[in-house]
Amino acid sequence: MKYSIGIDIGGTNTVVGLTTEEGKVVAIEKFGTKDYALLEDYLKEMKSRINLLCQRVNAPDSVLGVGIGAPNGNYYNGTIEHAPNLQFKGVVKLKEQLEQLLEQDGNKLKVTVTNDANAAAMGEMIYGRAKGVRDFIMITLGTGVGSGIVVDGKLVYGSTGFAGEVGHTIIEPEGRQCNCGRKGCLERYCSATGIVLTAIEKLHESDEPSLLRNCKEEEITSKMIFDAANSDDKLALSCFDYTAKVLARGLANAAAVTSPKVIYLFGGLSKSGDMLLKPLKEYFEQELYPVFRNTIEIELSELEEADAAVLGAAALTFE
Amino acid sequence: MKYSIGIDIGGTNTVVGLTTEEGKVVAIEKFGTKDYALLEDYLKEMKSRINLLCQRVNAPDSVLGVGIGAPNGNYYNGTIEHAPNLQFKGVVKLKEQLEQLLEQDGNKLKVTVTNDANAAAMGEMIYGRAKGVRDFIMITLGTGVGSGIVVDGKLVYGSTGFAGEVGHTIIEPEGRQCNCGRKGCLERYCSATGIVLTAIEKLHESDEPSLLRNCKEEEITSKMIFDAANSDDKLALSCFDYTAKVLARGLANAAAVTSPKVIYLFGGLSKSGDMLLKPLKEYFEQELYPVFRNTIEIELSELEEADAAVLGAAALTFE
Repeated sequence: MKYSIGIDIGGTNTVVGLTTEEGKVVAIEKFGTKDYALLEDYLKEMKSRINLLCQRVNAPDSVLGVGIGAPNGNYYNGTIEHAPNLQFKGVVKLKEQLEQLLEQDGNKLKVTVTNDANAAAMGEMIYGRAKGVRDFIMITLGTGVGSGIVVDGKLVYGSTGFAGEVGHTIIEPEGRQCNCGRKGCLERYCSATGIVLTAIEKLHESDEPSLLRNCKEEEITSKMIFDAANSDDKLALSCFDYTAKVLARGLANAAAVTSPKVIYLFGGLSKSGDMLLKPLKEYFEQELYPVFRNTIEIELSELEEADAAVLGAAALTFE
Repeated sequence: MKYSIGIDIGGTNTVVGLTTEEGKVVAIEKFGTKDYALLEDYLKEMKSRINLLCQRVNAPDSVLGVGIGAPNGNYYNGTIEHAPNLQFKGVVKLKEQLEQLLEQDGNKLKVTVTNDANAAAMGEMIYGRAKGVRDFIMITLGTGVGSGIVVDGKLVYGSTGFAGEVGHTIIEPEGRQCNCGRKGCLERYCSATGIVLTAIEKLHESDEPSLLRNCKEEEITSKMIFDAANSDDKLALSCFDYTAKVLARGLANAAAVTSPKVIYLFGGLSKSGDMLLKPLKEYFEQELYPVFRNTIEIELSELEEADAAVLGAAALTFE
């Protein structure tokens, strides 16, 4: 039996998993990313968790390596570069430093890094609904919007290693201010954060009664909008409609570039299911360049969110 | 010596070329596309021109095959599908019909079809500035805007064979009406047709004096706007500035998907050189997602327009 270590680095938590080639997560170690102000301490914690998991395997050489999915992770350089949601600023030489630390314990594991959305795409391709699909796009709708692009069965890294930033395509010229410094990026509309901004805008624009008026603006979450929409709250429903419309345009533009067979939605907002998916599919067909109409499915990922990132990252070690 | 037949099907002219593997166009046959109302007659003319060129080669088996670049050409199906600028409507089974016609003359040549922008990208990759560039985008700025996307050294065809429609990404929601039925497509702003629309808009918006007021609106061409801009005509210059700004946004969005190393501009409007290129490069860096800044060059294609399409199409026979 062959094993891999898959690591999902998030702004809040870091999950280290021991996985099998068949796609089972055998054991999980979890610790707070934010608990470590210094990169050195953070990586030492990561190393000790990896070692713990490796000890569970009888034959140490049956562990193929370590795969890591991280925000702004770079496959070519093995780095995390200028990740806005991590406390480790600038360029983090993740692969180099972690390999050195592991080697100090006699653990010669190769470390491979990619961005979190690419890891999710990898997970979907090997263990999820995208098995056998040669051309697809994975869209992660979380705090931001990430994407992994697969062309002819391979993840697209591009010349920089950072390809697949559909969340930062400009979808509304002179639109909402984005954290990236520009205006109108898709992720300012279609992430969990984006739909909250939409709700606040709509609450300001009219006096329409809404369940969302029962709490302070700054406390509104995407989950609350979902719950309100589920109770037929018109304003909340219109938030989903607007999100679907803008997302449809962004996906149609990305689809015009790579002509995928399927677009998979994953993470946070995708859990709203048909509330988002139904209007999205309708708008998407309208927004598509005619030659692509009725050629692209939009589906929800089948993978457990917790597993997909770890499994996808682990799959990097198979290459 | 090995030869290929490369064919460039345009709305006005069809060019049939005999090329060498080294990228020389040895001989050219040219006829009017529009002179043939019936597809059958058109293909017979094409066949007879191919035969003429094949007769120039001493050993007939030294001709590798026929490669064709056509608007809405589909690589997978060998078809032209619903090309708006051709008189042959619906789905044209180009590969199948032409192979049959050639075989009637005992000429067993394999026919390969792709779209015109893909053929240009192929030409640039094998014979032009893109030699050795693994990730690039070819943008053709003609009557419309086409694109060929190369990822990791391979043309992207996608699940339909129609990938690379950057000209039909929506860049201005609720913007100019496009021939494709939607609004705000990049090609309505950045093609030769698009810059004329921009000039007409600007002529209406103000009373600013301009050389372009010396002729009828419907007679304005992109060449006239270029000439006026060259004479420091402010309104004409502002047309190039606006075109550059919109094109920059479209290219930045496409670049966020595939992270190319270079974007090559080709055809009609690209001949305006620095008039377009200088403002384009400036706007492009602003419009780019920061992680891609200073990683992507924009360059003019080096290939002769007449040769690139034929050479690129011919290169399809090498695969």
